[in-house]
Amino acid sequence: MTTPHEPKKLFLNLFEMACVSHITHGLWPLPGNNRHRFDEIEYWTELAEILEDGGFDGVFLADVIGAYDVFRGGPETALREGLQSPNLDPLLVIPAMAAVTKHLGFGATFSTTYEPPFAFARRASTLDHLTKGRFGWNIVTSYLPNAARNFGLDGEIPHDRRYELADEYLDVLYKLWEGSWDDDAVINDRERKVFTDPSRVRYIDHVGEQHRVVGPHIVHPSPQRTPVLFQATGSPAGTAFAGRHAEVVFTGGRTVDEFQKNAATMRAAAAANGRQPDDIKFIVMAGVIVGRTQEEAEDKWRLYQQNASVDGALAHMSLPIDLTAFPPEITVSEAFARAGVVQERTSFLPPSITVGQALDFVHNGREGRFHVVGTPKVVADAIERWLDEDGIDGINLRQYHSFGTAQDFAELVVPELRRRGRLFERGDRPLALRERLFGEGNARLPDRHFAARYRGGANLDAPRESLAVVS
Amino acid sequence: MTTPHEPKKLFLNLFEMACVSHITHGLWPLPGNNRHRFDEIEYWTELAEILEDGGFDGVFLADVIGAYDVFRGGPETALREGLQSPNLDPLLVIPAMAAVTKHLGFGATFSTTYEPPFAFARRASTLDHLTKGRFGWNIVTSYLPNAARNFGLDGEIPHDRRYELADEYLDVLYKLWEGSWDDDAVINDRERKVFTDPSRVRYIDHVGEQHRVVGPHIVHPSPQRTPVLFQATGSPAGTAFAGRHAEVVFTGGRTVDEFQKNAATMRAAAAANGRQPDDIKFIVMAGVIVGRTQEEAEDKWRLYQQNASVDGALAHMSLPIDLTAFPPEITVSEAFARAGVVQERTSFLPPSITVGQALDFVHNGREGRFHVVGTPKVVADAIERWLDEDGIDGINLRQYHSFGTAQDFAELVVPELRRRGRLFERGDRPLALRERLFGEGNARLPDRHFAARYRGGANLDAPRESLAVVS
Repeated sequence: MTTPHEPKKLFLNLFEMACVSHITHGLWPLPGNNRHRFDEIEYWTELAEILEDGGFDGVFLADVIGAYDVFRGGPETALREGLQSPNLDPLLVIPAMAAVTKHLGFGATFSTTYEPPFAFARRASTLDHLTKGRFGWNIVTSYLPNAARNFGLDGEIPHDRRYELADEYLDVLYKLWEGSWDDDAVINDRERKVFTDPSRVRYIDHVGEQHRVVGPHIVHPSPQRTPVLFQATGSPAGTAFAGRHAEVVFTGGRTVDEFQKNAATMRAAAAANGRQPDDIKFIVMAGVIVGRTQEEAEDKWRLYQQNASVDGALAHMSLPIDLTAFPPEITVSEAFARAGVVQERTSFLPPSITVGQALDFVHNGREGRFHVVGTPKVVADAIERWLDEDGIDGINLRQYHSFGTAQDFAELVVPELRRRGRLFERGDRPLALRERLFGEGNARLPDRHFAARYRGGANLDAPRESLAVVS
Repeated sequence: MTTPHEPKKLFLNLFEMACVSHITHGLWPLPGNNRHRFDEIEYWTELAEILEDGGFDGVFLADVIGAYDVFRGGPETALREGLQSPNLDPLLVIPAMAAVTKHLGFGATFSTTYEPPFAFARRASTLDHLTKGRFGWNIVTSYLPNAARNFGLDGEIPHDRRYELADEYLDVLYKLWEGSWDDDAVINDRERKVFTDPSRVRYIDHVGEQHRVVGPHIVHPSPQRTPVLFQATGSPAGTAFAGRHAEVVFTGGRTVDEFQKNAATMRAAAAANGRQPDDIKFIVMAGVIVGRTQEEAEDKWRLYQQNASVDGALAHMSLPIDLTAFPPEITVSEAFARAGVVQERTSFLPPSITVGQALDFVHNGREGRFHVVGTPKVVADAIERWLDEDGIDGINLRQYHSFGTAQDFAELVVPELRRRGRLFERGDRPLALRERLFGEGNARLPDRHFAARYRGGANLDAPRESLAVVS
């Protein structure tokens, strides 16, 4: 819908999780913060109304299916901090929010590793029906060792292997979502008393390495059929997977160059799968602290930093050693060496910095490129730079305070962005989530997406090619 | 809450399913019937409001996870009839209904056979939180061959073996729901910044024949912890299972004697598990066709009979032969013999009746003891007999027309039952579903229930005894 002269628009999403402390640990006890109400249905309906009225395009729910019990050898820190535990099933809060909204999009994380694809295919189709096409799925393969042990395994399946399994999982889902029912299958003919034309429905007879699923799909085609496919990845295996499957990638980068390199790699992976560069959108997690004055915004940010919990952040990182127990002047790599532990997750903490620097970094939060503290004008200027210079398509707003972060953004930033023509305007007809992202009329996956091969029941028994890895 | 002089009260439940044609096949195309709207969220929120305002205690959602594809060798009849296919996930419509109600209870069927217990424990706890303790679960082990083939199996696991597996499944769930978190685990202490006291949370370390689940439960204790446990059964294995687990049994009987014999067997099974006779409530499926006059009611019933679909009923029964293809004068058993098929499901059709009688029976619906057609007075008289003579505790209202059946009952029967003191009155505080059934203050399972053994983390590693079979 964007003409060459229109400014690029921002997909505005709130980042949520059905728990007390999602990513901004230590802040839930701040005055007025509602995070402890995550188990009340009213928390979710109130939030949904704030977002719908406030001009947000979507709300996205993260998920884990286990405890953070690596740090200090147990789940104690995570429990004390409310760090993603307890954590409700995100799929179940969506219908409550859908009941009080018409436009807001919904995303939720679900892992391909532990639950049967037939059941998930049905849940996703149900949600896409109930939301009238506003459902998106963040594909993950899980990463917590405790999660594996909640589902009968001794430990995690190796990373790249999880993506191979996920690729078959998606294959089953596509057969059910795209291949099992034709668009004209449901005829709802009251005269002839025929609800579905059976000649337009078929078994999928999937027989794969991990799964055997006969079908037919138990749900008729929903507005989007396949929900919008989100993914967050950085690894080569994950990128190859995204090249075939993902429509929206949660990505990051601490500099313009870093983000653009990530995006270019992802687009190349998409091209290797016969897709167009614009078939993948990029959403970054953004920290936005806005105030009526610069001072007000900075006071707020200072309050958040002062209350940030280092323990919470360290437990969240699942560090196998307790950095707080080492002298601040030694390097992180020296701390690991002293503890006799191999440092794996280098992405979080460079081994060459000191323990003191690491704890400082953990304490102060990650102020990268996509972080801004200021007045509505300062914030809107930053967002315009992110859109025009970096080339992002949307933000996943990091919540420091619920509902303060969303309310501040809605009240102060949305009007400013709207004045600048940077937000999507709503028409009379509520759009499907995929239409909001890829333009009106595009509620379904494009024909060039891998999943389209199964439409009309084609290729159901064809072997599928290996994923093309782009290096 | 019932004093000796108060009349016994009726637990009033609507029987639903997120599909076009649940049990009254052929009726969905009747004028004004909304069944084709089962995939719209508004169908569920409108229905929930009708029930809440109309004095219902609950709505119960049946479920299947496969196609009825035995009759005539394929799913064609079921698809044409809208017979439980398509069929949405029932757990996902509950939060939408919960968002618009405060008192209405919710029940849903979920099978113990195909999905991991950790994930279901979490879904149930989430629903119990979101509904503020209004969730009940109908435990089933599944019966459709197609369902087995949607979850990687070649065919159904044998009936009694499914109950053995279900018993371990429940064991895992109880450890998570009752044993993993203490009541005082969540302290929500904003001053000390402690959400959960970790000393009150524990791993369950379940290692069983089928499942290994380490825990801890990912959801803190919900109002009821364990949802109200429903079950429908008749078999010895099922009865033994119910004796240990079930709190409400969906039962039936075509005569007073038959129902009472069923109930007595079930109570004996409960006693064999150290439970009290009143620990199990009995809900029967009831057909109620009410009109302002007897004639109006009978006209309505005639309309339903005239439109009843024999094909739909036969497909639903999963008959392996097509009775409509045999001469009406031969017996059912002769028809099976001619087809060279062994007749298994004798409970539905006695082998000695003729094909014509069988088709008549199928066509006219099952008019047993719990079926009434008449004025509000006639209906209320019948319900009082069911309560006082048969000894039922509630009804699961069979829907012939949506929302007509519920609206008629609410408008015509509820005021009459209320006048007679036969319905539960609501107080200011919405009750948990278990309180509605077992009295105020009883939101949790009683101490004598099997699940209570795990409270406070006791017995988590104790072996569990075999189920006591009562013959």
